[in-house]
Amino acid sequence: MASKKLKLIPLGGLGEIGKNMMAVEYGDNILIIDTGVMFPENDMLGIDYIIPDFEYLLDKKDKVRGIIITHGHEDHTGAIRHVLDEINAPIYATRLTRGLLEVKLKRGGKPKNVTLNTVRAGDEVQVGPFGVEFFHVCHSIPDAVGLGITTPAGLIVHSGDYKFDHTPVDGWPTDFGKLAEFGTRGVLALLADSTNADEPGWTPSEAVIDPAFDKVFQQAEGRILIASFASLISRMQQVANTAARYGRVMSFVGASMIENAKMARKLGYLNVPDELIVPLDHALNMKASKVVLMCTGTQGEPSSILGRLSIGKNRRFGLHSKDTIVLSSHPIPGNEEMISRTINRLYQGGADVIYDPIAPVHVSGHAKQEEMKLLIQLVRPEHLIPIHGELRHLKQHAALAGELGLPQENIAVIENGTIVEFQNGKMKVGDRIPGGYVFVDGSGVGDVGPDVMREREALGRDGFVLVHIAFDCKSGKMQGRPQLITKGFVFVQDAEELMTEARNHIEKLISEDKRGDIESKIQKHLENFFYTATKRRPMVFVFTSDVN
Amino acid sequence: MASKKLKLIPLGGLGEIGKNMMAVEYGDNILIIDTGVMFPENDMLGIDYIIPDFEYLLDKKDKVRGIIITHGHEDHTGAIRHVLDEINAPIYATRLTRGLLEVKLKRGGKPKNVTLNTVRAGDEVQVGPFGVEFFHVCHSIPDAVGLGITTPAGLIVHSGDYKFDHTPVDGWPTDFGKLAEFGTRGVLALLADSTNADEPGWTPSEAVIDPAFDKVFQQAEGRILIASFASLISRMQQVANTAARYGRVMSFVGASMIENAKMARKLGYLNVPDELIVPLDHALNMKASKVVLMCTGTQGEPSSILGRLSIGKNRRFGLHSKDTIVLSSHPIPGNEEMISRTINRLYQGGADVIYDPIAPVHVSGHAKQEEMKLLIQLVRPEHLIPIHGELRHLKQHAALAGELGLPQENIAVIENGTIVEFQNGKMKVGDRIPGGYVFVDGSGVGDVGPDVMREREALGRDGFVLVHIAFDCKSGKMQGRPQLITKGFVFVQDAEELMTEARNHIEKLISEDKRGDIESKIQKHLENFFYTATKRRPMVFVFTSDVN
Repeated sequence: MASKKLKLIPLGGLGEIGKNMMAVEYGDNILIIDTGVMFPENDMLGIDYIIPDFEYLLDKKDKVRGIIITHGHEDHTGAIRHVLDEINAPIYATRLTRGLLEVKLKRGGKPKNVTLNTVRAGDEVQVGPFGVEFFHVCHSIPDAVGLGITTPAGLIVHSGDYKFDHTPVDGWPTDFGKLAEFGTRGVLALLADSTNADEPGWTPSEAVIDPAFDKVFQQAEGRILIASFASLISRMQQVANTAARYGRVMSFVGASMIENAKMARKLGYLNVPDELIVPLDHALNMKASKVVLMCTGTQGEPSSILGRLSIGKNRRFGLHSKDTIVLSSHPIPGNEEMISRTINRLYQGGADVIYDPIAPVHVSGHAKQEEMKLLIQLVRPEHLIPIHGELRHLKQHAALAGELGLPQENIAVIENGTIVEFQNGKMKVGDRIPGGYVFVDGSGVGDVGPDVMREREALGRDGFVLVHIAFDCKSGKMQGRPQLITKGFVFVQDAEELMTEARNHIEKLISEDKRGDIESKIQKHLENFFYTATKRRPMVFVFTSDVN
Repeated sequence: MASKKLKLIPLGGLGEIGKNMMAVEYGDNILIIDTGVMFPENDMLGIDYIIPDFEYLLDKKDKVRGIIITHGHEDHTGAIRHVLDEINAPIYATRLTRGLLEVKLKRGGKPKNVTLNTVRAGDEVQVGPFGVEFFHVCHSIPDAVGLGITTPAGLIVHSGDYKFDHTPVDGWPTDFGKLAEFGTRGVLALLADSTNADEPGWTPSEAVIDPAFDKVFQQAEGRILIASFASLISRMQQVANTAARYGRVMSFVGASMIENAKMARKLGYLNVPDELIVPLDHALNMKASKVVLMCTGTQGEPSSILGRLSIGKNRRFGLHSKDTIVLSSHPIPGNEEMISRTINRLYQGGADVIYDPIAPVHVSGHAKQEEMKLLIQLVRPEHLIPIHGELRHLKQHAALAGELGLPQENIAVIENGTIVEFQNGKMKVGDRIPGGYVFVDGSGVGDVGPDVMREREALGRDGFVLVHIAFDCKSGKMQGRPQLITKGFVFVQDAEELMTEARNHIEKLISEDKRGDIESKIQKHLENFFYTATKRRPMVFVFTSDVN
């Protein structure tokens, strides 16, 4: 009997491949790895976030044996509720990741019947036919893991998001030994993080941030505000350590910061003595030079603490001219402009702002080229599937592996939806399943598609003009004058003349033509008229009423 | 008699300070430096470009003695026509800059009565009371200059956009001697480019691009497409040199590339033998390995050659799987996302794509920190006004100058519109003039203001719902059912139920209330209804007709 196929399927549509969700399928058994969200691009107007399209799994729900979450970042956890709404399978996560999932699931009422299993790096769990070994990796969040998955077709190693940090904040380096042991055992395929594949060298250790913080604390005369991601528990630890050294107390600002810090302290991932932490109200009444505030807003989001501070709209406290603000973060691609604007506004408000490259107050959580080469040398896989990166990063990762001697036919550079199959030790790039990504807008999941997006784009670019004409249904004559409503096109006070002219055009067309398909005639005529007059293309809608 | 004040005024609103336009004012005399445009940010929907607000000059038109253009980039030349429409003053520019201005002014009919004066680096020109000495600087375009302006109040040195390149493509380094000579003469104030003020070190020479190009040409099997800015004449030269070495011919693609190359060859700034250049049609019929195409599209603009190629919509030729595409450029801030998307699509199309950081196929045209320090040491100014950068860059530039011993009170970190005054050798930061920037959208200049932008933002985010209700003017009764039109809000086929429910709400409100201010009641009610149902906030418009 021929052996069954092992299928690896990255789900999602655009952006990074295999990042937010993957399926591992063998016969009647499916394992899901991660359930994350994507952030909308600048031209995805009005979209809150994007979830992977997992339509493929919907008629195979009962085959899903488990859901593994590799670490607690949004792009790996954010779609968990959407997945659990459809698929009932046990979740496996490390303690901190589980803690972050629970905080997330509690909001809006925890779904029933969720089985959350806690695993530790080093554990092995049997999930259907898959023997999953969890191993520790360093990343910009503690308790992150990679996976060794023993399948009937062979051993698959999944790096998760990783870097090789010899001096991480929690003292727990990536598990070199386990990776080498996999290599000795024989690895059918390595799925590896490609985020920084176009960056040469080795990502600096998180330890380089400590001296940078030291310098900031030495020089700051007033308050220090450190902005970071609410999930960056190790950064909280570094801030706490520095605050203790310089005799400042620390306060967390914002719900997600407060909740995550509380949970991380409870679970022992954040070691801060009680006396070092004070509530915000307390901190605001202390001497400025004795305080550090930790908040969100590193991406320049207008609704974040930093965003509101920058435009003078923060509720509980304002910006002081002696404030030192540290952006301990990297820009998520697409946010560069918003971040620059926020930094400039904070400077306008009189604050001093410290950000990379001014000082190394942040390092990447992902491996660079030399680390990627090391991973391949340790694991010595027969096949490589670059994941966690845009197509360009995957291509670079493949080129790097080529330099190491891996034949290009043993490397699969794929896109989301492409199925990679393994049978009898051979790799084959299979079909691409239909589907892509699903927009979440308000409470709507998937109802905003390309048509609505095109309308938003057109409306956002040039606005609209709406024309209403009433006809007497007996005489067929126009009643009154055409009504025009316009928004987002021209400033109406300035455009009286333009609208009067448009009205004259409409009346002329009607007088020449009577009815027929007068609506589309008027629409086309006005589109041309407005374009000639303004070189803009507002959407034009014409509707008529028959009255009397 | 007290001496008059010398005023320096950077014009514009947001973004980089003093970049696009500056005024130098002494008594009844004004000198304009540069007339450039800004590019819209991602959330400035529908805006084509932005020009500085020069309202300040409009009642002083007859005092403007001259307009100096430091180099031929859009952000220094792009608003020339708008300025000439209002202000009639002679222009001074170097040969290449003049050539680029003429290409620009020819489009849409050259304005009458323009006086274009050609200057050379080393020339000194008297413009009213201002003695202007032009000196050569290296930048990412040839024939760029900085200015030494002898005013009755003292000598002002303006760096223009510059870097210190010891091995520029045209063999003409920045004029160290002149800068040192200014320093010996005594400089009241230095206005210096701050673009890269947060980047340590020294910007690499343009010469580093040659070996990178060599590697690309060695390895490419098919066509090579090099994308760059149409004004980057020195890059054209480097491509031509490499093409000649590797036995390829070169073709310029796109109107701006063709026109600029032609002009630059005519003026002697681009030295390429005739036989090396072939028309596109010719190139497309040659063996792929014998051809280099030079085109635009480095910013991922959908309408550019590269943008169209990436989505398979280029008219005259398509993408080949053996194409090698080089992005010889840097991302203009805010374009990162569009560029990544274009690169990924080109990879999807089977091409190989080379971009920084994969290979050093581009270098910055602006000085980094060590060069900025050198400039200050050469010029030894009494005062420093950092310009050409966002506020955060100016702050860094000021900090660097502080490290060199310049007292902070001798440094003016200002924003656009802030007047810096000099009198009796003393610097004073004066008032800020009102105004900011002017949006250009289609043929409209300045008619799109904050109100229209807010409408576009709202329409782009959540679309709109328009309600029309006809009332019988005699009975006051509603005629027929309310008509609803919606765009950009929900996919209408999916939302039949929502619209029916909305219609029921409207009818209920009308039956309860009769007329009165029913329109605003319905509007508020529907806004709440739609938000509750969808968590979105479409614009809601209600209008009524009285019929019969």
